[in-house]
Amino acid sequence: MKPQPANTPETREPTKNRQILLSSRPSGEPSQDNFQLGETEIPKPGPDQMLLRTIYLSLDPYMRGRMNAGPSYAPRVEIGEVMSGESVCQVVESNAPNYYPGDIVLAKTGWQDFSLSNGEKTRKIDRSLGSISYALGVLGMPGLTAYTGLLNIGKPRPGETIVVAAASGAVGSVVGQIAKIKGCRVVGIAGGEQKCRFVKDELGFDACLDHREPELGENLKAACPEGIDIYFENVGGPVFDAVLPLLNNFARIPVCGLIAQYNAAELPPGPDHLPLLMWAILVKRLTFRGFIVFDYASQFPDFVTDMDTWLSEGRIKYREDITDGLENAPRELIRLLKGENFGKKIIRVSPDPTATKR
Amino acid sequence: MKPQPANTPETREPTKNRQILLSSRPSGEPSQDNFQLGETEIPKPGPDQMLLRTIYLSLDPYMRGRMNAGPSYAPRVEIGEVMSGESVCQVVESNAPNYYPGDIVLAKTGWQDFSLSNGEKTRKIDRSLGSISYALGVLGMPGLTAYTGLLNIGKPRPGETIVVAAASGAVGSVVGQIAKIKGCRVVGIAGGEQKCRFVKDELGFDACLDHREPELGENLKAACPEGIDIYFENVGGPVFDAVLPLLNNFARIPVCGLIAQYNAAELPPGPDHLPLLMWAILVKRLTFRGFIVFDYASQFPDFVTDMDTWLSEGRIKYREDITDGLENAPRELIRLLKGENFGKKIIRVSPDPTATKR
Repeated sequence: MKPQPANTPETREPTKNRQILLSSRPSGEPSQDNFQLGETEIPKPGPDQMLLRTIYLSLDPYMRGRMNAGPSYAPRVEIGEVMSGESVCQVVESNAPNYYPGDIVLAKTGWQDFSLSNGEKTRKIDRSLGSISYALGVLGMPGLTAYTGLLNIGKPRPGETIVVAAASGAVGSVVGQIAKIKGCRVVGIAGGEQKCRFVKDELGFDACLDHREPELGENLKAACPEGIDIYFENVGGPVFDAVLPLLNNFARIPVCGLIAQYNAAELPPGPDHLPLLMWAILVKRLTFRGFIVFDYASQFPDFVTDMDTWLSEGRIKYREDITDGLENAPRELIRLLKGENFGKKIIRVSPDPTATKR
Repeated sequence: MKPQPANTPETREPTKNRQILLSSRPSGEPSQDNFQLGETEIPKPGPDQMLLRTIYLSLDPYMRGRMNAGPSYAPRVEIGEVMSGESVCQVVESNAPNYYPGDIVLAKTGWQDFSLSNGEKTRKIDRSLGSISYALGVLGMPGLTAYTGLLNIGKPRPGETIVVAAASGAVGSVVGQIAKIKGCRVVGIAGGEQKCRFVKDELGFDACLDHREPELGENLKAACPEGIDIYFENVGGPVFDAVLPLLNNFARIPVCGLIAQYNAAELPPGPDHLPLLMWAILVKRLTFRGFIVFDYASQFPDFVTDMDTWLSEGRIKYREDITDGLENAPRELIRLLKGENFGKKIIRVSPDPTATKR
């Protein structure tokens, strides 16, 4: 599909349901050609169903994996199918028990204006907890990812040093701020001076390094004079290479994402560093553990309680990067995978009816 | 030093103290030239010291790491120093409190006939628990390594499948037998038909595969129809490559040793498989954790109690591979690193005075 002009708010009352479909599988970096804009009638809810209108669509790095033919940790999207994704919606019509027109819900709708739901895997959003869009970020999947990965696997202790990559992003920004609350020295890594300044000045990290600087390894060493006890891995690639030699004995590495390698069509050239990693794991007694947020779904109530407290106390700050227009979702996902977003990436698909009330 | 003839028992009463020194650092596989036979007077114990005569010297894969200039998880041996190692000794003379001539002790003596000790890092051996040499194997460091790595990191559950490399060795043989006691399906990997038969028929593993067979990957897949839940890593290299694609979600990998790569002078050629490993950790939520037996020293009493019970019930079997003559230690370490031993490798440096009593 062709690039669309940026930030064209959708104001007319829709008569059709626009959908973004996966039209082909990317090899390497995705392009607009991998997506197609489709249009259907607005569906009619059957018995026990409700019609949802998408307000905020979440864009997340994991979506790149769903575009592949190979296995990932989530089911792939088939060619011709609507791109999958989570969104905040308003109930337009409802035959579903306990859901009423006007309700604001979180649902797995995919990339489209309208969708049907029977209420399964859907939950109402508590409007008292900040913007309803927070349910896609700091109070939703990315926030829970940060909270559970850090606390269950990272196990931060006061005085320890933690390094967080993608530090201005939806997950990394929360990881670092929780680690500060837990008494750690927190060193962020982000792309570009503007993000680094934000991470340090606004989020309160102790330091933030620009991964685009050629001397990342030396900068990181200087910023971590006592080595690294926790590395929250969500990027992989050269950042990981810089971190590995600085890890302390008994360091913990929650492996949450590998955005730097999602677009890789083939393995990098040699030499093969795998034996080096295994040697480091052995000699330094490192713990690497992969996780997916759903593994810790049972910790959601604790998470919401803690996070709501921290947000209201101003101890956790949160930045969103909102773009208007469903048609811009492909372009924005491509930019997200290049680190060109600044904060949690969200597409505003239709006006937020709660926005004026706050 | 020149190769020595095999199995020449030391019968004459010694008048000197022979020592095996590290004479140069190996690049890649060690050779006899890296060792030198030295001779000193038999030392005289000072106040609070005792003179120990080495009976059984333990040879272990970790010793390769101590021959390197670079960092390992244990201090390196300097050029001209006595090779380090643990042995079972008899007290010859003693000014040390609570130690008396004739006592059998475990001590860090290094590769030599005689040594002095003040009793620190030394313990008396309970002669009721089988051969005194067991303190170097199934009842000592290798046994504790197997026990603590499997139970603390592997966390075996009934019905799970575990793969154990170096399955006939000092650690692997114990790992597999404890896993059987814990109700697992146990698949061993060993070098050659004779070892595989021993592992299956004598140790009672459910299957054992020969890593020298070219179709190891397929054989392993057939032997693990429900995938692999625990891989006890003590070899690395091609065995690891065969295991990785078969690991189940939430599999645990205690990283105990990497004997296949200890002799490697440089990294293997590309492509670089590190991103593949990180991807597997993420998608399958794997746990890799390195450990060293000293990390779990506090579990030694539990270990001895359990292991003594299992040995006396015949639930754990144990094989030793004993070679006579201190002068043969270099050759036997070289063979050990190639997997040419068959069972726990021990050098009998002097006659075992307790042997006839059993």
